Amino acid sequence: MTLHYKGKAKRILSSLGVEDYDRIRIRKGSLVYEGIVIPRPEIFDDEHVILKLDSGYNVGIYLDGVEIEVLEKGKPIQRREIPSLRFREDLPYVPLIVTGGTITSRVDYSTGAVISHEKPEELLDIVPELAEIVNIDYVPLFAEFSENLTPDHWRKIAKAVYDELRKGAEGAIIAHGTDTMHFTAAALAFMLRNLDKPVILVGSQRSIDRPSTDAILNLIAAARMAAQGPIAESVIVMHGSPHDDYAFVIRGVKARKLHTSRRDAFQPVNEPPIAKVTREKIELLSNKFNPRREGRSQVELDDRLEPNVALLHVWPGMPEDMLRYAGERFKGVVIAGTGLGHVPRWLIPTVGEIVSSGVPVVVTSQCLFGRVDLQVYETGRRLLVAGVIPGGDMLPEVALIKLMYALGHTSDMEEIRRIMQTNIAGELGAHLGLNVFPPCWR
Amino acid sequence: MTLHYKGKAKRILSSLGVEDYDRIRIRKGSLVYEGIVIPRPEIFDDEHVILKLDSGYNVGIYLDGVEIEVLEKGKPIQRREIPSLRFREDLPYVPLIVTGGTITSRVDYSTGAVISHEKPEELLDIVPELAEIVNIDYVPLFAEFSENLTPDHWRKIAKAVYDELRKGAEGAIIAHGTDTMHFTAAALAFMLRNLDKPVILVGSQRSIDRPSTDAILNLIAAARMAAQGPIAESVIVMHGSPHDDYAFVIRGVKARKLHTSRRDAFQPVNEPPIAKVTREKIELLSNKFNPRREGRSQVELDDRLEPNVALLHVWPGMPEDMLRYAGERFKGVVIAGTGLGHVPRWLIPTVGEIVSSGVPVVVTSQCLFGRVDLQVYETGRRLLVAGVIPGGDMLPEVALIKLMYALGHTSDMEEIRRIMQTNIAGELGAHLGLNVFPPCWR
Repeated sequence: MTLHYKGKAKRILSSLGVEDYDRIRIRKGSLVYEGIVIPRPEIFDDEHVILKLDSGYNVGIYLDGVEIEVLEKGKPIQRREIPSLRFREDLPYVPLIVTGGTITSRVDYSTGAVISHEKPEELLDIVPELAEIVNIDYVPLFAEFSENLTPDHWRKIAKAVYDELRKGAEGAIIAHGTDTMHFTAAALAFMLRNLDKPVILVGSQRSIDRPSTDAILNLIAAARMAAQGPIAESVIVMHGSPHDDYAFVIRGVKARKLHTSRRDAFQPVNEPPIAKVTREKIELLSNKFNPRREGRSQVELDDRLEPNVALLHVWPGMPEDMLRYAGERFKGVVIAGTGLGHVPRWLIPTVGEIVSSGVPVVVTSQCLFGRVDLQVYETGRRLLVAGVIPGGDMLPEVALIKLMYALGHTSDMEEIRRIMQTNIAGELGAHLGLNVFPPCWR
Repeated sequence: MTLHYKGKAKRILSSLGVEDYDRIRIRKGSLVYEGIVIPRPEIFDDEHVILKLDSGYNVGIYLDGVEIEVLEKGKPIQRREIPSLRFREDLPYVPLIVTGGTITSRVDYSTGAVISHEKPEELLDIVPELAEIVNIDYVPLFAEFSENLTPDHWRKIAKAVYDELRKGAEGAIIAHGTDTMHFTAAALAFMLRNLDKPVILVGSQRSIDRPSTDAILNLIAAARMAAQGPIAESVIVMHGSPHDDYAFVIRGVKARKLHTSRRDAFQPVNEPPIAKVTREKIELLSNKFNPRREGRSQVELDDRLEPNVALLHVWPGMPEDMLRYAGERFKGVVIAGTGLGHVPRWLIPTVGEIVSSGVPVVVTSQCLFGRVDLQVYETGRRLLVAGVIPGGDMLPEVALIKLMYALGHTSDMEEIRRIMQTNIAGELGAHLGLNVFPPCWR
């Protein structure tokens, strides 16, 4: 027998002779916990012990001010048989395209083993609700934390979605790291033309082996949207509140990760969520979406992207050579300006030179919410004279990807201008009602 | 008599013999307007005429599909006497330090003249409430839209605040453009040490000559905070809601412009507003602030800033030479990473080289809300090994300014690390309660 804990937890537990799978009782003030010691998952800190309670639920207990009593020496819990996957004729087929991220990093507490994502049976063992909603299969593409993704990865994902939909899937789910999920969701929105089924990005902010995980609800909501959702868009399905009660369906081109760690980190910018999904049902919050079309998918793949595009945020005193470097190094530049889309005065001649050299410059706002308007102030008007393309209500990140898409199709400045200012996938033209700005200290 | 209009408006109006101050009637479909033609303010476009209605209210009418009839030739409206400024012994002295921005661009519709900001009497004529709260005087520094400000401007402002407080002001108000107001507010928070009075940045999203202006409430709230607020911090006082009902007092190092155009564009990140101020009173929303101290100010000026610092936001596929350029060009680099503070894998060796060359690299998150945590994932741990300084819960913009401040004081890497990780002005160590993340679609 062994003890899979480190640091402080190891010191405390081993001093009491506690080993993995022992049944112990922990008193902490007036609280008493009784359960089986679960080998420590890699991602945990060194200050908690994980107990599997008789209820089957796992808790992490902070090892401070505790009394511990060993009730019974343990033996490894037998892994129960995982039912093999059976195809249900009454449910649609939906692939789970696996790309990596927290949602794929998890530990099976019943064995201590890291679960691979190669067998959907294992996922269904953890989230059995999925088997009631969809016939699921895994499409493993790669295993990357999403900060490492590039436009090439987006192309692979788009191709996998295209293949799956063309072969009859009712929708597609993509398990994805959360860091750049909104970039990928926007990229798919541009690359999957004539989309007629839902394409769902899903991830988790806390891994599936933690009591506070958001993965289970997110997966259920994603499956429900993929199978039953009335939409045909590339969307993000993640927690809509800090509680484990519902997920939001957020249009990919209007989504942004706005919090480092909260379960409801993804929020729509400039429009309401498309829908709210609980474990039981889908509630539409908007009627503005591209509708699902029945029958075999006619989706088209248009994955021409020019990856050589820069995204620059201006700051007070930003020197012009920084912008000049980008203008010479890249085939397109997106500026996240201040306020309505402004840049420091001394950058404007450089902007003009970059545009004159044939490199399009798109202006967005680092405010994120709202829309650029280059007509209001002198700075904006001078930027227009310099030849910039106003990004409307597009997020800087979305303008970046759209400019990659435009440059993938043409190098003609006027055609690029036309593409950037034409709505392709819901990225432009949001009606900015008062209630689509989030602050709620009212 | 003359006509102060340009372009299309001039063509239409002059073809009908309309001049400034004429009484005219405009029919537009079923609508009829009757009023006095007000000389066109500079900031207006060329397609509207401004009428002063008999109600005293001004409207801008879009000159398309209109029928116009001249009812009476005009004579200039007499300007009423502006009362001269009288010092009230029972009220504190507070300077209005003028730096430019929308709040200083306005037109007196009763005369058509652009009001200069050189005479506080004129401001008090428009916002007479101020005279009941403070003895105000103008300190004109410069007139710049805030996108054009640099660390040199921040130094000038800090010096003016220092001088005014040292000579006995109970607080200071700074009229400022909104584009980079949060940068200036953070810079003042670091440069004004041992602060014992409130320093208030105020601006407006809509100019004071528009019916929807936010300037009047913001000025009243700013004056009230400067004169009576119990705090000694550099704060932003701007609308707290889209209505004209109250302003928020937001700690400068925790404030961000999050909307291009809304009146409540400024929001606190990671903490609640310090207070809510109506036309009548101050309501504290937090008890976490540096308190005002009575008596002659002992504030100190520490304006050593190294302006040569870059702020880079990473994006999927960002090439390493972009980061390398910044590492060679600047004396410090702030990275706005993804999620918990991550960068693409291939940037990490370059980060290491930059740090090894003696250039500090601070990591923040482009999520804006939350805090970086480089212990959770491999990417973060590798960044720590490469020598980055974690930015905690600082906004990227605040980390930029703090790094300018740190580099203004030392070039010793370990001392810079210590400064960046020590709370100086409330920029670090927010307690991230569930209610300090704004989304409110619940």
